[in-house]
Amino acid sequence: MKQGLFITFEGPDGSGKTTVSRYVYETLLKLGYPVLYTREPGGIDIAEQIRHIILDPKNTAMDVKTEALLYAASRRQHFVEKIKPALLENKIVLCDRFVDSSLAYQGIARGIGFDEVLSINEFAIEGHFPDMTLYLEVDAQKGLSRIERRVFLDRLDQEALSFHEKVVDGYKTVMEHFKHRVVRINADQDVISVQQDALEEVLKKVKEYV
Amino acid sequence: MKQGLFITFEGPDGSGKTTVSRYVYETLLKLGYPVLYTREPGGIDIAEQIRHIILDPKNTAMDVKTEALLYAASRRQHFVEKIKPALLENKIVLCDRFVDSSLAYQGIARGIGFDEVLSINEFAIEGHFPDMTLYLEVDAQKGLSRIERRVFLDRLDQEALSFHEKVVDGYKTVMEHFKHRVVRINADQDVISVQQDALEEVLKKVKEYV
Repeated sequence: MKQGLFITFEGPDGSGKTTVSRYVYETLLKLGYPVLYTREPGGIDIAEQIRHIILDPKNTAMDVKTEALLYAASRRQHFVEKIKPALLENKIVLCDRFVDSSLAYQGIARGIGFDEVLSINEFAIEGHFPDMTLYLEVDAQKGLSRIERRVFLDRLDQEALSFHEKVVDGYKTVMEHFKHRVVRINADQDVISVQQDALEEVLKKVKEYV
Repeated sequence: MKQGLFITFEGPDGSGKTTVSRYVYETLLKLGYPVLYTREPGGIDIAEQIRHIILDPKNTAMDVKTEALLYAASRRQHFVEKIKPALLENKIVLCDRFVDSSLAYQGIARGIGFDEVLSINEFAIEGHFPDMTLYLEVDAQKGLSRIERRVFLDRLDQEALSFHEKVVDGYKTVMEHFKHRVVRINADQDVISVQQDALEEVLKKVKEYV
């Protein structure tokens, strides 16, 4: 038996990652599996401090590469303090967003470059890529219409749509690159069906593992 | 004429970098050269915020790789906001410590690895290595005896000496790797002689440049 099982949930905003990953977590918990649910910065003090700098609206001068390095630093600390110890205790770790988000958002959508962002993340996670990544695949327009319900409509101008499309394209590239660990979930269905599909894939993997 | 001239000062603690680099700065200024003196985080707001996280004594849980990523992030922002604009204005930029410090301290003395720390720093500075690096070369014991005058003697236990020796060894490796841009200054002399040697090398380079 290998040590722990590391599963991440990825997809653009509006793909339903959080709802779906929390459903999978609660089901595994009810079934009695040792499982940890997390998302960066995950209550880890140093990671929270770093995230605070990234998200502070006063930091308008922040360069995109500074931001990418800060995300990698926050990821590193969250990984070392929370994910790695849980894996060493043989837990199933479910993580809402991980390295692939940085590759899709910073690497491709923001234009830094896939290889460049991969290199600093490889430094941060030292080869600890997920055992499985559930990629919640959505049509760009559909994903955006879901976000519209959550935020003020007037913020979603043409620039937002264009950026969202770049993220969706970014994810396509990232998921193609890592297809050996990626399972695609059709997230253009109703949420119950998406949850069921995701759960089925996770249970299949969990049964291989235990 | 190329754009700007970027000169860094490197060496272990106690090598006299700050005294020497400030002397060179003040002399160039008197001679009428357009010159900027800086050291990270250099008053750059975002870089200062990052440095605050690194230096906060409460952050005892900080992993060495998180620290290296934070140094790279701070360097990136300082570079983008302060060094690069000055070089684009054709200034001579004198910087007290830069990439080589991270390679010697984090890469080698802390044991992360030279190539690993180089990769995240290449991401941060995008190929903008210094045009010239003055390496203030000291005997490990001698450098340490200078620090002893500055800090409480009881903090300088065997561990401090051993770490200091690792830094000195680290610098040897780094400076050998980048010998095309490195000028060695014998820093085991009295400070006036070190300042004169450093000034002479900088003036030689400046005259090639203008």
